[in-house]
Amino acid sequence: MKAAFLAIGSELLGTDRVDTNSLRLTEVLERYGVPMTRKAVIGDDEEEIAGEIRHLLSHADLLLISGGLGPTADDVTRAATGRALDRGLHLDEEVAEGIRRKFESHGLRMPDINRRQAQVLEGAELIPNRRGTAPGMRLDTEDGRTVFLLPGPPNELDGMIESHVEPWLEEHTDGGQREHRTLKVACLPESEVEQRITPAYEDFGRQTISILSQPGEIRLRFWAEGGDEARHGRLDAIETRLRELVGPAVFAGSEDEELEGVVGDLLRRAGRTVVTAESCTGGLVAERLTRVAGSSDYFLGAAVTYTNELKQAMLGVSEEMLREHGAVSEPVALAMARGVRERLGADFGIGITGVAGPGGGSEDKPVGTVHLTVVGPGRPNGDSDEIHRKVRFPGDRERIRRQTGQLALELLRRRLLDQPGVAT
Amino acid sequence: MKAAFLAIGSELLGTDRVDTNSLRLTEVLERYGVPMTRKAVIGDDEEEIAGEIRHLLSHADLLLISGGLGPTADDVTRAATGRALDRGLHLDEEVAEGIRRKFESHGLRMPDINRRQAQVLEGAELIPNRRGTAPGMRLDTEDGRTVFLLPGPPNELDGMIESHVEPWLEEHTDGGQREHRTLKVACLPESEVEQRITPAYEDFGRQTISILSQPGEIRLRFWAEGGDEARHGRLDAIETRLRELVGPAVFAGSEDEELEGVVGDLLRRAGRTVVTAESCTGGLVAERLTRVAGSSDYFLGAAVTYTNELKQAMLGVSEEMLREHGAVSEPVALAMARGVRERLGADFGIGITGVAGPGGGSEDKPVGTVHLTVVGPGRPNGDSDEIHRKVRFPGDRERIRRQTGQLALELLRRRLLDQPGVAT
Repeated sequence: MKAAFLAIGSELLGTDRVDTNSLRLTEVLERYGVPMTRKAVIGDDEEEIAGEIRHLLSHADLLLISGGLGPTADDVTRAATGRALDRGLHLDEEVAEGIRRKFESHGLRMPDINRRQAQVLEGAELIPNRRGTAPGMRLDTEDGRTVFLLPGPPNELDGMIESHVEPWLEEHTDGGQREHRTLKVACLPESEVEQRITPAYEDFGRQTISILSQPGEIRLRFWAEGGDEARHGRLDAIETRLRELVGPAVFAGSEDEELEGVVGDLLRRAGRTVVTAESCTGGLVAERLTRVAGSSDYFLGAAVTYTNELKQAMLGVSEEMLREHGAVSEPVALAMARGVRERLGADFGIGITGVAGPGGGSEDKPVGTVHLTVVGPGRPNGDSDEIHRKVRFPGDRERIRRQTGQLALELLRRRLLDQPGVAT
Repeated sequence: MKAAFLAIGSELLGTDRVDTNSLRLTEVLERYGVPMTRKAVIGDDEEEIAGEIRHLLSHADLLLISGGLGPTADDVTRAATGRALDRGLHLDEEVAEGIRRKFESHGLRMPDINRRQAQVLEGAELIPNRRGTAPGMRLDTEDGRTVFLLPGPPNELDGMIESHVEPWLEEHTDGGQREHRTLKVACLPESEVEQRITPAYEDFGRQTISILSQPGEIRLRFWAEGGDEARHGRLDAIETRLRELVGPAVFAGSEDEELEGVVGDLLRRAGRTVVTAESCTGGLVAERLTRVAGSSDYFLGAAVTYTNELKQAMLGVSEEMLREHGAVSEPVALAMARGVRERLGADFGIGITGVAGPGGGSEDKPVGTVHLTVVGPGRPNGDSDEIHRKVRFPGDRERIRRQTGQLALELLRRRLLDQPGVAT
């Protein structure tokens, strides 16, 4: 079986957006051993879309289409598919009623134009949309090919991949033959990771492992093929070797695990709570911690103190200290973490102060200079439970803030790995 | 003239990379008024590529191809183009010599495989590569179409865009004739915006205006063609009409302006400061406000209060109120905004409390229920300066939080537009 993908939408032919939905679909296809052989992007023109659908179906057995299922006049995917496959389109009153009820549940009246989304292609199986209004569809052509019409918004697409595309692949393939795993590494430079894993390239082949890098986070992805047992055995062997070579900077063994979730799990298992005192990150670490559902189990709150006055009033940093060392300094970062921990009543306090730029840098404290601290409830062996790091991050404001947030979470994670009762 | 783009390379059909070269080319095309009408990605298979080139040339006058010009066996773009256009391929000794010298200048001997890069298509104009070894090519077909073969690495591609693609466009078009502008709209449903701008479709043509939607934000993009004066006049006319039809929900007149930046400018011009008290958003609004360089001019700090205890301790919300109304209620949201405004000493306080889910919902307060408040320094006419909105957002945790942040900023923006001295 060979797959192809078509992204529909004039906005994907402009200067600022590219299709990324194909990545989500390719990942699922890969798990079932189905190669993605070509992708195309086309604008909202019914005739052009119909032509492209016919073209792609002459090269693939499975065609995945995303976008153009909205309610507006330029959402023509339904009509174009009907034209390409010579199938009629009718308005399904039951679907229309379902869409009407969705609006109603938010206290809204369904605009008339949304009735377009209730148009169904002859012979199509409907795919309910749990996260939006437009249903998807699956059609089998007379010559045994399959077409999925899927929505453009990623969260709606994900819902349908899970509910319908995956089960269909499960049924129509022998199950996965080629599989990959991902290890995620925090706060190490790419070149350092590359150097550490060189022996694994020699053991398993350079093509087997790839390194994907972004600020503060590196992903190691590795592949194996063959039957279930051989494939899993080989993935286990590569994973063990890589974890051994990279060490404790590996924080996750799958693509969807984020550092804030890993830290959250460690806090929950340790029965500990955390609060943050943030200056240059402006609440970014608190925001990341609370992205995780259930974070109220361990996250209590945060004090964002952008001014010196608020560092004093909210955290008890002394005026003398600020005058003597400046706001971006080790003593102030420590006082922030201590202050927030005590005043907000948590086990761990994180303190962050730095120069995110582009202004505010000096010869002494250039843009990118950040002091990070983690203050805890005391270590069992009586050692100090205060961690401080001074770093200088490269890049622009956004990159400096992102790397700072990542390192703050990583420092807390490393501290929690020492916590009794928490396995490494 | 219509353009199409083909990216060649199996690595662009995997799970972690998408083509972005098309964005660079689209930007240049747009300046010369040439629409990009379709894009495709295909793997390193000579026959498949040849078929795709023929397909794309049947829909476009200008075909831009990137990738597959390297020295290895899977770099087959040259051969595939020859096959598609029925042109022979010969080794050009002069080109080979040039590549050899490039290696030599780095103290290296040219590997034999690099001789492949000296293969030139019959009738092609060679495009020198100042930043790599593979030359590009331009070919005119017998039926008057043009094909550019360009390298995949972005810096090499950029060099050839500048040296050859732009000059070619300059010569083959009337110069820049087509231009777009973008208006950004906050916190209105797509269908509502569509309905409001319907008269503009009638005045200027449906194809002229497109709607791009994401949670809490809609972009209206519109195009005009012709000479400088006519084009700008028409863009002005469309912009005026759209602003009139959509009203004050239009917050920006260009792609790069973000809501947090617009709010920041309004605060700075009014000489006002802001602080936030956040529960379900966990610091997201503070984080957004501080993304903006120079935000310390008007942003002082924030209290993130995830627990009831911290709502009391940090913001002075009373225990009775929390017991009587629950944390997600109008009185608590108002008390949060009042408390943070007074305690942190700012002109404006934002208060946010809600159920971001997936847990924590009830029949009375289902997931997505959010109370937002903005409390200010008093309106000149003596009217109340407290705004409250209760909403129920659709979607998952991330979407609910994003929409909440957007609405909080939008409520403050609307309030600031009433501020004396600030133009609407």
